[in-house]
Amino acid sequence: MLKWYEEGVKTDVVVSSRIRLARNLKKYPFPNKLSLEQKFEVIQVISDAILKSGDPSVAGFRFIDMDKISKFDAYAMAERHLISPDFAENGQGRALILSEDESVSIMINEEDHVRIQVMVPGFDLMTAYKRADQIDRILEQHVEIAFDENLGYLTECPTNLGTGMRASAMLHIPALQSIGAVGQIANTVSKIGLTMRGTFGEGSEVKCDMYQLSNQVTLGISEQAAIENLQGIIRQIVERERESRNNIDHDRLEDVVFRALGILKSARLLSGDELLQLISRVRLGVEMDMIKDIGFDVLNTLTFNCQSAALQAQSGGPLDADTRDKMRARIVREKLA
Amino acid sequence: MLKWYEEGVKTDVVVSSRIRLARNLKKYPFPNKLSLEQKFEVIQVISDAILKSGDPSVAGFRFIDMDKISKFDAYAMAERHLISPDFAENGQGRALILSEDESVSIMINEEDHVRIQVMVPGFDLMTAYKRADQIDRILEQHVEIAFDENLGYLTECPTNLGTGMRASAMLHIPALQSIGAVGQIANTVSKIGLTMRGTFGEGSEVKCDMYQLSNQVTLGISEQAAIENLQGIIRQIVERERESRNNIDHDRLEDVVFRALGILKSARLLSGDELLQLISRVRLGVEMDMIKDIGFDVLNTLTFNCQSAALQAQSGGPLDADTRDKMRARIVREKLA
Repeated sequence: MLKWYEEGVKTDVVVSSRIRLARNLKKYPFPNKLSLEQKFEVIQVISDAILKSGDPSVAGFRFIDMDKISKFDAYAMAERHLISPDFAENGQGRALILSEDESVSIMINEEDHVRIQVMVPGFDLMTAYKRADQIDRILEQHVEIAFDENLGYLTECPTNLGTGMRASAMLHIPALQSIGAVGQIANTVSKIGLTMRGTFGEGSEVKCDMYQLSNQVTLGISEQAAIENLQGIIRQIVERERESRNNIDHDRLEDVVFRALGILKSARLLSGDELLQLISRVRLGVEMDMIKDIGFDVLNTLTFNCQSAALQAQSGGPLDADTRDKMRARIVREKLA
Repeated sequence: MLKWYEEGVKTDVVVSSRIRLARNLKKYPFPNKLSLEQKFEVIQVISDAILKSGDPSVAGFRFIDMDKISKFDAYAMAERHLISPDFAENGQGRALILSEDESVSIMINEEDHVRIQVMVPGFDLMTAYKRADQIDRILEQHVEIAFDENLGYLTECPTNLGTGMRASAMLHIPALQSIGAVGQIANTVSKIGLTMRGTFGEGSEVKCDMYQLSNQVTLGISEQAAIENLQGIIRQIVERERESRNNIDHDRLEDVVFRALGILKSARLLSGDELLQLISRVRLGVEMDMIKDIGFDVLNTLTFNCQSAALQAQSGGPLDADTRDKMRARIVREKLA
């Protein structure tokens, strides 16, 4: 079965949409107050509720004991945004439920007992929300969730109180980045309850031109309203990005795009940062129909499968930076050949 | 008929060898003292001597009145090293005799009445010398040349007195360049009567890694001895370049070489300087057998046909820098496709 990012759905500016719901069991303290024994109980309760539900929407979901997989496999999952880096780092008393296509991941005993996350390609927050909500309904049919009439869903961190929902979109905005407009946009959206940040770690946004825009407000607002607010702002940013793209000299843009593709097809050594930067430029070329023979499936797959942990997971052991750079370049060449 | 540089002779380090002989007619003052009328006479005398000789070694040679060709055609000839830039700039009272394969060019009324130049691919100064000498014999059979028993051939500039011969080799030494060894080599050879300089104008040597090494001494030494001196030094430089190439990390070298090829195949805009730099790297890859499907004919042709004047000569009129960069990139892509 293809992973969600391998399906090659055509996207433009909004690479993917994500919904995350934080939920906690009423009968247990938050994870950071749990004994290891209790954590195992929580894992049992939640995984039974979901995996034994028999609901068709969770067919093919599998259970992963985070303490029993290799660190490289765990870090590679973090690189694919299935789990948080902290969840990859400390696996004891933690488990993951994962759909076959990796669009749904459910972290057990992260900051909250349950973190339901749904990712879909493109600009489609409502589809992601509906799928997350469906998992949430299954969960709530079988277990009692910590909920307060006034506050809504109770969460470890007060910033998640209420809906417990974080909706976000991954924005590919190289043109806005190139004219230095991102800082001002980030500043503006922060004043209306949104956050914009880089997606592949500190400083990486400059290289891959990818930003994650998400809602911050979870209290006193419905899920529907929060998503609509976010959608409205995303539409404005998409519009500005498209305008900026059209303002770039076409010859120079083509040159940048095709050079990036030429380097990807030719390089014998590629650092992870350079790969992301070059893929961003090729993605722009594909989005703008300059490049027609490369699909988003290829770009997404290379983005996820060629990061450091993914390479080490594939080779089954630690690799030094030079060896990774060589392996990364080889995989990229073969994929683009 | 193919040009000498289109024959694709496999070369390594020494790209080409060149002999230039300076000769003057006994009956006329040096060109800078000639009236325009006298210059025309000199052109007539010399071109008759060579072109009407019936000698098989000048079959197919053609006469070009430098005042009757376009400036772009003239500058493009200078780019191909057939004539000096000054000869391209001021065509009045000057003519060129050119062999079909462009390996032999005879400038009439440059600094001296006659400048016979022969270029051959690779490290083969003696072949070049023999061909130049053959032309010189034809000339001397028909006209009286200015010659002094003690000084040898008389020339306008005292630095050419004696043999009137300048022997030179075009060296492609990217590895020595990369370790910063060229300055020291240039300094050393200058102490033994040789000169090393860049080949595509001021500062260009750093970009294309090409240096021209030539003899300076023409007085009190035979042609044979001057060529042998030069050959000895060339062999040492070739040896040092090969050693340096072998000392470079193979993976990094391959990366540099194939990236250069990837950019040449992909770029939509290419400056003349960048082209020379990238071709140098690809040439290194071909010389070292990393790249097997590209011949020296292609590299030589791109080097000569994509310089500024060549492009403008091809398009028949002036082109701005952006248009040249675009045209250059297109020609390179088509040639390498």
